[in-house]
Order: sequence, then structure tokens, then C-alpha cells
Amino acid sequence: MLILMEPAAGPDLIAEVVALLEAAGVRPQIQESAEATSILAPHASKALKPDRLEGLPGVRRVVPITSPFKLASAEGSLTPTIVEVRGVRFGGGELAMVAGPCGVETREQLFATARYVAEAGLKLLRAGAFKPRTSPYSFQGLGRDGLRLLEEARREFDLGIVTEATEAETFDAVAETADLVQIGARNMQNFALLKLAGRCGKPVLLKRGPAATLEEWLYAAEYVLSEGNRSVILCERGIRTWSDHARNTLDVSVVPAAKALTHLPVVVDPSHATGRRDLVIPCARAGVAAGADGLLVETHCHPEKALSDGPQALLPSDFFQMVEQCRAIHRVISGRPVGVGLAF
Amino acid sequence: MLILMEPAAGPDLIAEVVALLEAAGVRPQIQESAEATSILAPHASKALKPDRLEGLPGVRRVVPITSPFKLASAEGSLTPTIVEVRGVRFGGGELAMVAGPCGVETREQLFATARYVAEAGLKLLRAGAFKPRTSPYSFQGLGRDGLRLLEEARREFDLGIVTEATEAETFDAVAETADLVQIGARNMQNFALLKLAGRCGKPVLLKRGPAATLEEWLYAAEYVLSEGNRSVILCERGIRTWSDHARNTLDVSVVPAAKALTHLPVVVDPSHATGRRDLVIPCARAGVAAGADGLLVETHCHPEKALSDGPQALLPSDFFQMVEQCRAIHRVISGRPVGVGLAF
Amino acid sequence: MLILMEPAAGPDLIAEVVALLEAAGVRPQIQESAEATSILAPHASKALKPDRLEGLPGVRRVVPITSPFKLASAEGSLTPTIVEVRGVRFGGGELAMVAGPCGVETREQLFATARYVAEAGLKLLRAGAFKPRTSPYSFQGLGRDGLRLLEEARREFDLGIVTEATEAETFDAVAETADLVQIGARNMQNFALLKLAGRCGKPVLLKRGPAATLEEWLYAAEYVLSEGNRSVILCERGIRTWSDHARNTLDVSVVPAAKALTHLPVVVDPSHATGRRDLVIPCARAGVAAGADGLLVETHCHPEKALSDGPQALLPSDFFQMVEQCRAIHRVISGRPVGVGLAF
Amino acid sequence: MLILMEPAAGPDLIAEVVALLEAAGVRPQIQESAEATSILAPHASKALKPDRLEGLPGVRRVVPITSPFKLASAEGSLTPTIVEVRGVRFGGGELAMVAGPCGVETREQLFATARYVAEAGLKLLRAGAFKPRTSPYSFQGLGRDGLRLLEEARREFDLGIVTEATEAETFDAVAETADLVQIGARNMQNFALLKLAGRCGKPVLLKRGPAATLEEWLYAAEYVLSEGNRSVILCERGIRTWSDHARNTLDVSVVPAAKALTHLPVVVDPSHATGRRDLVIPCARAGVAAGADGLLVETHCHPEKALSDGPQALLPSDFFQMVEQCRAIHRVISGRPVGVGLAF
Repeated sequence: MLILMEPAAGPDLIAEVVALLEAAGVRPQIQESAEATSILAPHASKALKPDRLEGLPGVRRVVPITSPFKLASAEGSLTPTIVEVRGVRFGGGELAMVAGPCGVETREQLFATARYVAEAGLKLLRAGAFKPRTSPYSFQGLGRDGLRLLEEARREFDLGIVTEATEAETFDAVAETADLVQIGARNMQNFALLKLAGRCGKPVLLKRGPAATLEEWLYAAEYVLSEGNRSVILCERGIRTWSDHARNTLDVSVVPAAKALTHLPVVVDPSHATGRRDLVIPCARAGVAAGADGLLVETHCHPEKALSDGPQALLPSDFFQMVEQCRAIHRVISGRPVGVGLAF
Repeated sequence: MLILMEPAAGPDLIAEVVALLEAAGVRPQIQESAEATSILAPHASKALKPDRLEGLPGVRRVVPITSPFKLASAEGSLTPTIVEVRGVRFGGGELAMVAGPCGVETREQLFATARYVAEAGLKLLRAGAFKPRTSPYSFQGLGRDGLRLLEEARREFDLGIVTEATEAETFDAVAETADLVQIGARNMQNFALLKLAGRCGKPVLLKRGPAATLEEWLYAAEYVLSEGNRSVILCERGIRTWSDHARNTLDVSVVPAAKALTHLPVVVDPSHATGRRDLVIPCARAGVAAGADGLLVETHCHPEKALSDGPQALLPSDFFQMVEQCRAIHRVISGRPVGVGLAF
Repeated sequence: MLILMEPAAGPDLIAEVVALLEAAGVRPQIQESAEATSILAPHASKALKPDRLEGLPGVRRVVPITSPFKLASAEGSLTPTIVEVRGVRFGGGELAMVAGPCGVETREQLFATARYVAEAGLKLLRAGAFKPRTSPYSFQGLGRDGLRLLEEARREFDLGIVTEATEAETFDAVAETADLVQIGARNMQNFALLKLAGRCGKPVLLKRGPAATLEEWLYAAEYVLSEGNRSVILCERGIRTWSDHARNTLDVSVVPAAKALTHLPVVVDPSHATGRRDLVIPCARAGVAAGADGLLVETHCHPEKALSDGPQALLPSDFFQMVEQCRAIHRVISGRPVGVGLAF
Repeated sequence: MLILMEPAAGPDLIAEVVALLEAAGVRPQIQESAEATSILAPHASKALKPDRLEGLPGVRRVVPITSPFKLASAEGSLTPTIVEVRGVRFGGGELAMVAGPCGVETREQLFATARYVAEAGLKLLRAGAFKPRTSPYSFQGLGRDGLRLLEEARREFDLGIVTEATEAETFDAVAETADLVQIGARNMQNFALLKLAGRCGKPVLLKRGPAATLEEWLYAAEYVLSEGNRSVILCERGIRTWSDHARNTLDVSVVPAAKALTHLPVVVDPSHATGRRDLVIPCARAGVAAGADGLLVETHCHPEKALSDGPQALLPSDFFQMVEQCRAIHRVISGRPVGVGLAF
């Protein structure tokens, strides 16, 4: 249930409600918003009747949460969640963009790419140091050396780092480097990893599994949320279907469908969704047009030399075009005045 | 093969090439464009060597078509095909929109809907008189009475009519009424129907089958084209996948992927793609952002009373919003100056 | 609703019930069985109350049919339907097998194949005279000449003929030749064709569409049944999925799932389900093991010369092995004594 | 490459080849078979020319492995791999069956089920102590207490234990208890877990992911194999498709398709493949008929009280029927004399 407090209710009254919930075995989460505080109490109705809580001083109203995702559900939050990563806001009506190469390969490659990503006005750089690969014989990433290069890139270009955590053993190292910890599609139901993500103290970007329904995706988010981490960003990256013109099928309608069910921000990764450079910009634009809160895009200074996913990496010039067009589309659907200049 | 004629080559020289091809058992198609005439000769290379043709007067060059869709292939046309329906251009860089109810139900319903479709500035009205339905017990459409109502609506509101042909028996009646004959998704591989469409003398809108690959879709178009009808518009309307938050999965990346392979225009139907009103506008925007040449959208004056597909029909007010936003997005990706007003 | 008559109820009493139903606008179907007659009256409950019918002389009980497939539903029949085709029984606990080449190509090819099909003890020969093909440039079948060859084969080898009807124009010719009219997967929702099949007076084999749910398949059967044709055999032939080791995915669990919902017999086509010769026998065995009432298999005297689907056609020697193994598996699951010899 | 040694080649000559390979940076695996020893040397051709090896004493022949799965490929083994688990042979032409409840719930439940599993002649018991669940609020298994109960059951009923490892933290505990370590479908591409499985010294049952192609599944096996563990059993458990009559779609043709590519044994899990009790027996039979080396089936003494997956657990009586029918089918396709009695 969601317990809405009176605007005037102070810390004491809130603590009283929390104490009652905890005594009943519930793990409440406190949510502050501009108007008032609310207390999210998953499965509290199994232990307490609403009127027991509504009788408490400072409690304005108790709202049942009918959704099975108690913490991820839109019912459980008065306002959309905004996840802030080094000043970039996911979910607040703005368009948050993350870009970079698939993997960290060399300092030259990383820096050359980071440089034009920053020039395009982006504040967040993506690149994997640990790469989950289908074949044990494929390039598996630079590992801890890659993390160090990412830290260098952060200092050099003032870019926040988005990078993937793949396993328990190296999780802490990744989480220490990352400003936003990515959980990859193949790990969406790696529940041990989700719990680590829920306790790591960093925002989490949770990719949708290639065969996950919207419901399963929200349950995966619930695993992270239920460990106390409220900063979760959902990322659609294409699903596996029989449609064979692209590596995956971008399920663009899941963006508005997810936003109808959850308060969490939703972004789109058009690179993995397509696997084909010529489809990335159209799909990036489609994602923004569908209402995504942001994009996660692969670009590489020299895609033809990339050790992984070169065919889907945008060339620098394409990348600038994408950023410009997506910002313009975002202004259109945000109802803001659409300027002529489109400069960024 | 594609035989490019010299700009100066007159009818006589063209006739000579055609005669040679026909003598070899090939069925050539003549394509006029601003710059020059070209002759599309499917499978001619089986019968004639290119240099036999290149030796003829007036022939500039002979280009092999490697694609298996000889007529639909982008290789087979110097310019994108523009299909014009009552003054509306599909494929010429403009945004062509078609809207209306799923089915013709009554004069009141059709006229009330047609009125605001016209007010929004659209020139084409869609509605089915013959409805293919999963169950034999569902409403099957008004049939010929529906066609008469569509003709009345055309006169009353000066709107072109887009309506579906479902079978041989009623094909001619539908084609007589329609300005654009729709072949539905379930009939995409109804080859007898495709051949009728190829001979009907009207432009054809060919929906993608719910489980058709891009290649199969282009082969279906080839059936229509090979009967001599060059006016084919492709329509993506969602594919069948396991993703269950919507009725179908809008395969938005097929828009740029199709345009890479074919010269035919491609439009998107966000209504059947989703089956949910709240997803239609985001998906319409996504389709336009992905580069679609147009939209086919369901709207109904009173969706709650619709005899079919009510849950996916846009309300009038939503419809106006969709039209406005889609036009603005189209201007963004067309690189045209983006005005502040967005008025239509 | 299903109206069960008393065993002693004679034609007069039955006629009285039928008259009452027809007066109410219902189209009743009479079903005779060993024990008693029943009258299937789809949607009768919209027009008549059950007690109005239960009050009639000779009526034992009125059972509502809750399924939306009134005629296909298992609720609507006291016993499984047995469809008999030239003495071969589909649905009566026996294993009905049909085999032959994909298409009729020449008299030599057809006769050579028919000869060993008959030698294996089969009584039904399959081969297409009209071939629906993805590409307009592929071999489209011999047409009416093919039908004449099939008739010759019937006389020569005493085999019933199973062949596909693809369109209205040639439907009657096909139905005249065929002992069992096949409706192909791509035509499962060609409703005009289904209605013709419902009125043709021959048994119908209805293939499942490559993207059809079980429910949609039963609705398609309902189209045939509702025209008065009670002899419908369902055929699973693989569905379209992303699993890419075979052309389609044999959905073997649909066999028992269908039999739980309908009284109609269900067979399996392992050839189209796989498209790979080496998978056909294992999948034929799997289909029989799952409870299928029969098989529809492609075999060709010289697969390497086949004009269509050669890679999936069983060689003669493989074919004999398949027949033997499938019969033995069928005996196992039928609970009959399992002989040592397995001779046929 | 695969290096076939002369039958007479002794340990010294083998050691010489191994030393040469290791000096070239290759990690060779020695395979003993009845006829001769072979040395599997993945990617050795990148470092050494075949004739360099063929020149060595004791080397009969060097065969290139063209498959990208160097260790899993059928090319890399002279004979099918037999994985033996407490005397039960997977892959040697016999039918290996594993059964038990979804999860360990109580001693009573586990023992009651184990008792009749043993009575049916099975030697292996399955049950999860750690349960990966879609929702964080679902029963997650008894954990280490469950492992202790499994060990008790092994002693009490002389049954080998098959149980799932889900994460690094508890991996060793699971591997200590298990006679066969299961890697679940959702973890098929949890590469860290696969590596642990490759180093655990116990045989591994690797479920196919719900959206994994055959190729990806074999790559996952390659991760285990490349850590030195040659005892890998593949398990098909249904894939995710749009076909909605069952929880998943049993992809029965993957059994022969996998066996064409790999030397590893392949089993089928009809319980997760369907999620419906009434479909489990038909699908178990289908799996065996398609050539599976075994089955993994859920059965529960009181399915209606099960904490997870009750609806798919076979009742005891059904279970006995399944075992009997599957053994009889296995005899049919093994070409062994088919006795009348079918007793087990």
C-alpha cells in the first residue's frame, strides 16, 4: 500500500508510521516529493488493515497497490521518478543521451570517441570493460584495465561513465567506476546480480531481456528496487523475433506501455535493437518520438576497426545528425516551442 | 535487367528494344522519369546477353538486377516511386495520411468521422465495407451497402476512399468504389487476390502479413507489380510476437529496411500494430520518425459504440493531436524549416 | 447449445425441434451417434431459453456450449469426429497416413512415387497441382493437367487423392478431383476459400497458419463447419518462430491441446514443419507420440530433381522406415499389444 | 583441430603432442575412446600447421574442425559423449530419466515424491533448493536446508540428485550436494556461472534459454567445456513464442538438429515446455520419439499443494504411465525387440 502523509506531517509522525510497519514485518520505503511525503509499503495489506494506518496522526490517505510490482508500479509513486546521473536527468521530461563504443579497446579509441561525444553536448559516455560474449573465443573486454581507462576518460572529458556489470566477482570494481551501472539484457533475470545492483548505491540501467515480457522486466526492476535502490532506468534494446531484416526487433510500443505501468524512466538502445548502422538513426528517432526519456547509442571513431559490434556503431558524422534530429523531435513532442536553429 | 535509354531516345528506339525483349519471351515494363526512360525487363538475362542490348541504338547502359524481386527492387528504378491517390502523394517526401473508422457501420457514423478527418486537412478516408473477421459470428461489414455509403462520403467531403478487397467475388465492386484498394494482412499471400489487384487499374495498399518477413512482403508486392500495376504502397501494421503488452509488435525498423531494398513507398498503421488507443499516437509518431511516407490510422466518432476495433480507434481530439505532432516530426526529419506555429 | 435427444426419439420429434430452432433463426446441425441423436444449435441461447426446448417431447437434455467455436468445440459433440476418406479413418484411434511429392511434376515422377507409397500400405496420395509460391517466378504447379495426372494415379494405384485448393476460380476443379481437399497454411484465414470448402461436399484438411494461435485455427475450422461441412481435419505444419535450425518450429504440444478443445481429428505435417529431410522422421515420430491421428508427409522418388521442396522430401527408403516406426509408436500409445515383428 | 593418434601410441607420444600444443599457446583436451586416443586442440590451426603435427610420431591424422564450437562440435569427437551420473548413462543409446518436484518444500513432500520416483525404477531425483523466480515476492526455495534434505533423500532412496545452481555465492554448496548440477534456462548465458560449472568437477545439465538459438546453446556449452569439464548434457525445455496454448513451445526438432551438430547428449523437459499437466505426457513421449537421450520431468505427490509449478507437475499415477510409455517408445526407435509386457 501507499501511505500518503499530510503535507505538514513532520519526521516524528513519519517515523511512527514506519515503526508500525516494521513491527508488522514490512520494509517501508520513504518517498519525498515537492508536495508531500509518501511511504511505500509493499505487501503491507497482508499484515495491517488500511484503517489501522489511516487512524494514525499525519496520515492523509492509504491507497492500495493492486499491481504485483509494488515498488515499480506507477500506482506506488505520486510522480514519475527522475534518476539523476552526474547532472543528467532521466525521466523529468528531458532527453538524456548516452553514447560511446561497444567496448573499451584502447585509450586512443576511447578518447577519440569520447571527444566527439562530448562535443555533441552529451554528458555521459558508455563503453564496456567487461563484455558478455556469446562465444568464449570472442573478445571479452579489457576488464579492470578498461575501468581505469574509463576513469581517465571521465577526468579528461568531464563525462559520466555508463558501463556494464556482468558478475559478482567484479561487481564492486565496476560499480566503483560507473556513474550508472548497466545490467545487460542477458542478465535481466540474473537475480543475484540484480540484488547486488540493488545494494550498490549507484543508479542502475536495466536492459530488457531479449525474450522478456514487459511484466517480467518490471519484476526484474522490482528485484533492484526491493533492495532499497530507487534509481532504476529501464532500457528497451530490441527483442528476439522471426523478423529477420535486423538483429532484433525494436519493440517501440513498449515505451508508452511501460510508462503506463511504472514511474521509472524508460530509454531506448537503437544500436542493439537493430545491429545495422543504417537503421540506427531511424530507430533512435522512433524511440524518442514514442516518448522515451533517453537513448543509449553506440558510436565508434573507426567502426571498421571495432573489436565488437562495429556494423552497428554510428560514424561520428551520423552521430551528430542523430543527436540533432532526436533533440528536435523531443522538442516537438514535449510541446515546447520548436526553434528554427536546432543548434546544440 | 534494367535498360537505361539515352535521354534523346525517342519512341521508335524504345519500341525496338521492347520488341527484341518480347521476342525473347520477356515482359518489359517502361518507366518514364524526368531525366530519361528506362525499361525494366525481369529475368531478361536468362534469354539475352546484356551486350546484345547495349549494342542497340538509343541504349545507354544495361544494369543487372541481382535482387530476386525484379520489379520491387530499388535496383530496378532510378527514382523512388510516387503513388498518387486523388492528389495525395505517397513516396515523394511528403507525409500522406489516411484515417477513418475500422468499418462502415452507418451513414451517421461514417459521415461524423469523415467530417473531422477532412477538417484535420486529410484527403483520404479509410473504412472497410467487407471485413475479414477471425470468427464467422463477428460483424462482417455492410458489404455493397457499405461501398455506396463510402461513395456518398467521397462526394460529401471530397475525400478519396481507401477500402479493403477480400475476395474475388466482390473484388470488382470494391475496386470500382476505391481510390486506393487495400489488401489486408491476412491476404498478403492470397496470390489470386494479388493478381486481381495487379490488374485492377487502381493503386494498391499492401499490408504486411502478421508473420511475413520483409522478403516475403516484397515478393507479394512483386505479384501485383508483375501484373502491370506499378502503383503499390507497402503498409507495416505490426507483427505477431510473444511480446504481450499490445496486440501486435510494431516493427518500426522495417520502414528504413524496406526503403533500402525497394523503390515503393512505405506507410505505417499504428492502430492494428497496437490494438490499444493509448499506444497509437506514440507509435504513429515513431513510424513517421522512422521515415514512413505516411500513416493509416483508425479513428471513430464514438469508439465506445464501434462494432469492431473500438479499443484502438482514436478519439477525435486525440486524432487532431496526432496529425499535428506527426506533421511536425515529419518536418524535422525532412530537414525543412521547422516553424513555430505547427498550424495545419 | 447442444440438444441431446432421447435414444427412442424418432425423426418426427427431431424434426419438431429443428423446426422450432429454424423458426427462431438458428441453423441447427443434426449429429447421429451410436447411442443417440444430438442437435447442435449454435448461438440458439440468444433466441430461445433452454427450458423452452427441454419441454419438448423427445428432448433429454439441453447443454450450453460455452466455447466461442460452437461447432468445432469438444463440448458440441458426444464423440470425437471420425472423417473417413476412401476408407481411411481420421480420428477413430487409428493412424491415418498421407504421403506423396510436394507437387505433381510429371507422370513418371508421380507414378514412381505413388507406387512405393501404395507398397508401404498407404491408401492416400498427396501432391499439389496448384502450388501457392512465395515468388511469382517459382514453379506454380501443373494446374488442371496436374489434376488429370492425379486422377490417373488414383485409378492406377487405388489411392485416394489429397490436393490443395488455392482460389475460387479453380476450386471446383480441385474439389472434383480430390478425395480430401487441402486448404494451405497461407490460406487459413482466406475466409472466402473456407466458405467454398464448407460447401464443397468433400472432406477438408485445414492446415494451421504459420502464425495462427490454436484459437484462430479453430475459428477457421468453424468457418468451414458453419457452412454445413462436418468433415474437417486439422493439420499442424510448424509455426514461424525465431528458432532458426529448421524452416518452421513444429508445435507438437498443439496436438493434445487441440484435442482438448475440439472433436475434430488432428494430424501433423513434419515435412513443412522442418524443411530438412534429416528432421522429418524424428518429427513424424514425435507427432504420432504426441497423439496425432495421422501424418501428411512429403516423399519424392528423386528429391534431388524436385521442382519444389526437394530438401524436405523423404527418400523412398527413409519413407518405409518412417512408416514402420510411426506405426509401432502408435501401437504403443494406443495400448494395443506391441508385436515383435512390426511388419506392415 | 582434432589430432587422431595411432592405436599403439603410448603416453609418451601423446605427451609430446600435448607439449607442442601447449608451447604454441593451445589448451588441448585428451579424449580416450575404445579404439584410440584423440587430442582436441581448439583454435590450434591459428598457431600450428597441420603438417607440423602430422609429422610427429604416433600421430595418425589431423582433422580440421570447421565448426565455431570447437569442443561441442560433433566434428571434435569420434563417438557420442556418454555422461554417467551415479550409474545412469546419458547419451549411450539408453533412456535416462530424471524426475521430482519443482522445488524442495518439506521432508514429507520430498520423500513421498522420491519414494514413487524410485519405485518407477528411476535412479535420479530432481528438485530445486535454490529457485530463481520471476518475482522477488515468490517462494525462493529452502536454500541450504533444501540441500540437506536432498542429501537425506539420496541416502534414503539411493537416488542421485539433480539440482540447480543459480549464483556464485552458493555454487559450491550446490555442487557438493548435486550429482548433476543444473544450469537453468535463464542462466544459459550467465557466463560467470558457466565457467564455475566448467570447473566444478561434476556433470552439468545445461538448459536451453527460452530465446536461445541452437547455435547460442552450443556456445554456452562451449563455455563449460572450455574450462575442462567434458560432462555436459543439453536440455530442451521449451522456447518462447507467440503460440499461447502452453507456457512455452516445445521445440522438439531441436533434438535431432542438436545431435547433428554435437556429440553431447540431449534431453527434454516436457514440464517447463508446457506448463500444463495434460500436455506433459504427450510431450514427454514426443521428446523420446524425436530421439532424446532422456527426460527431466516434474512430478509431485500433491501438486495442488505445490509452492511452485503445481499445474505442470504430474500426478503419481500419470507419472507411472509416462515412464512406461516412454520406455516402450524408446525401444521402438532403438530398434530393439519390443516386448509385449512393457513392465519396468
